[in-house]
Amino acid sequence: MFEKILKLPKRTQKARNHGLSMVMDKGLSVNDAKNLISVASNHIDIIKLGFGTSLFTNNIKEKIKLYQKHEIKVYLGGTLFEAFIVQNKFKEYESLLLDLNLKMVEVSDGCTYINHEDKCRYINELSKNFKVVSEVGSKNENTEINIDKWISQMQLEIKAGSWKVIAEARESGNVGVFNKNGNVKSSFIQKICDNINVNNIIWEAPVKNQQAWFIKNLGTNVNIGNINPSDIIPLECLRVGLRGDTFDNFIL
Amino acid sequence: MFEKILKLPKRTQKARNHGLSMVMDKGLSVNDAKNLISVASNHIDIIKLGFGTSLFTNNIKEKIKLYQKHEIKVYLGGTLFEAFIVQNKFKEYESLLLDLNLKMVEVSDGCTYINHEDKCRYINELSKNFKVVSEVGSKNENTEINIDKWISQMQLEIKAGSWKVIAEARESGNVGVFNKNGNVKSSFIQKICDNINVNNIIWEAPVKNQQAWFIKNLGTNVNIGNINPSDIIPLECLRVGLRGDTFDNFIL
Amino acid sequence: MFEKILKLPKRTQKARNHGLSMVMDKGLSVNDAKNLISVASNHIDIIKLGFGTSLFTNNIKEKIKLYQKHEIKVYLGGTLFEAFIVQNKFKEYESLLLDLNLKMVEVSDGCTYINHEDKCRYINELSKNFKVVSEVGSKNENTEINIDKWISQMQLEIKAGSWKVIAEARESGNVGVFNKNGNVKSSFIQKICDNINVNNIIWEAPVKNQQAWFIKNLGTNVNIGNINPSDIIPLECLRVGLRGDTFDNFIL
Repeated sequence: MFEKILKLPKRTQKARNHGLSMVMDKGLSVNDAKNLISVASNHIDIIKLGFGTSLFTNNIKEKIKLYQKHEIKVYLGGTLFEAFIVQNKFKEYESLLLDLNLKMVEVSDGCTYINHEDKCRYINELSKNFKVVSEVGSKNENTEINIDKWISQMQLEIKAGSWKVIAEARESGNVGVFNKNGNVKSSFIQKICDNINVNNIIWEAPVKNQQAWFIKNLGTNVNIGNINPSDIIPLECLRVGLRGDTFDNFIL
Repeated sequence: MFEKILKLPKRTQKARNHGLSMVMDKGLSVNDAKNLISVASNHIDIIKLGFGTSLFTNNIKEKIKLYQKHEIKVYLGGTLFEAFIVQNKFKEYESLLLDLNLKMVEVSDGCTYINHEDKCRYINELSKNFKVVSEVGSKNENTEINIDKWISQMQLEIKAGSWKVIAEARESGNVGVFNKNGNVKSSFIQKICDNINVNNIIWEAPVKNQQAWFIKNLGTNVNIGNINPSDIIPLECLRVGLRGDTFDNFIL
Repeated sequence: MFEKILKLPKRTQKARNHGLSMVMDKGLSVNDAKNLISVASNHIDIIKLGFGTSLFTNNIKEKIKLYQKHEIKVYLGGTLFEAFIVQNKFKEYESLLLDLNLKMVEVSDGCTYINHEDKCRYINELSKNFKVVSEVGSKNENTEINIDKWISQMQLEIKAGSWKVIAEARESGNVGVFNKNGNVKSSFIQKICDNINVNNIIWEAPVKNQQAWFIKNLGTNVNIGNINPSDIIPLECLRVGLRGDTFDNFIL
């Protein structure tokens, strides 16, 4: 509507290949999901059903169908994948994905050690039937991996079949590309961007200051993940400068 | 109902001139807005459609109409006003307000420099067709203004036609009348109150401890703004002492 | 459904005597409550209508009825009990409970001093007509009580008729069994557990790290309270290890 009146940076439109927003759903009811879609479906590209929440959410199939009907990709949090792997149930996990009619899957190793060759094999195997996103970086600050390993793992995972790689930050935004106070490790991120096409990376950035940092440094159409449902519209404002944090970057 | 049984401080009732609660809506769906109204409409005087969120919210006209039907004043966040001013589109902004059937407008200069005489001219011009609220204080901690300037600006803005002046604190409550840790600058506030009728000021206070401070120091019917929708009923409790933080002030 | 595929620790089922989850409702609308129930009713044992919020919530009787219909126990926050007691209106409080058709009541002394013998008398009196929960620990960090008193008060209150005793932490989780930074006082808690049957204690633990601590140290079926409605499904994941924080404890 009145968007046209103001001069704003250009956002990509759905179905997006970059400029993606991935929202974390930690147990919305079907009605909550309907309300979210009614107000913001054109701003949501992907929904992650966080960690194991899909197991404990009533009417999960109905919710998945609802999201998919509105051109939102849906996948289960990587923690659930890891739980099945740890218990040696890869086949059962594939069956589960099919049963839930999911088209996307996350492969991660944030909670448990998985040999990286095995991880790439899982990615490759799953990429035959699903769009794969894979996550790099441990959830545990004590087992963080160094920058060279990050980069090489991301490259190998893309090669193995990942559509996008996810830079881990957890729901709280305090590991991986952030330090434990939630501050951005900027030179770390810069090195990743020097080596990987940034359109292929989804940055987990649940906190406003983190989102603003990525937008200011990597642009309006950076891919951002782990967004709280109630922050999806505020994030659109950040992306185009209609919020104090990024006003100077895009409006002036 | 059973309110009558307890001895509580007296709250003003709608339509209030003071004791105002201004809620920040950052992108509620129409159904979310309906639910909020169903439970709390008598406690909400004003809704701010925060910063640029109104641009990205589907069914915005329907939502505005809904709020207005329940005697809630609605206005667009000042950041949007500033974006139009910076791009030299004051007339377009007025057209937008009319198109959205808004009766209230915010004039602010928190994101960008506006000569204060110009600001007062905008207030004066808009006050012919709208109820004006104007905001004092920068969103940026590095460009904060001193106490004498705060007071004189507030006085001039009221004189120019502002119904209420808003003391800036952002959505996060860490600038303006608060320091960057969110603590209250009490002597700063005291000086403002010595010079401006407190009923004419809306204090942005998004955090519980800040709200409690204003209520304890300026009374049950202080005007409070930037309230999270889910905090509006807890705020009523704070106002009358039915929460631990203010219990000693009103119940004993 | 697919719960059966994974090997997970065994959760108690409703109506539970332990493994309880108590959710804090600070003013949900009836529709919000319906949505919450639709997705999570089997995970919610108790709803506390926090502090005085029940006074300011429209359609409160309808909401209470709705919760009770889904086998959720409902009670009013202890702050309201204390306000009535301070104003010498115990009988009026009982009438209020009956009018609201409540079957459960909280007896607390977190906001105001109540002689402990009197507190036990209130518990005893109310236990004739209601299921009683009683809370130990002050909301004020300056008047915190020592460990021996905690234990003896808990024992006396159970003897007086409390179904469960609640370890105070407030909605913010920064007093009582936590220090003011929200960290767990682990040896304090250990001593309580050495003296009181842990199934009889509900631990207020609003923050994820606190919930994870209790689950790791006291098990999947520890009683947890002051849960935010949007955290009830994530809490189920924590309880069984399907979230990073407790993955190592239950999945490996």
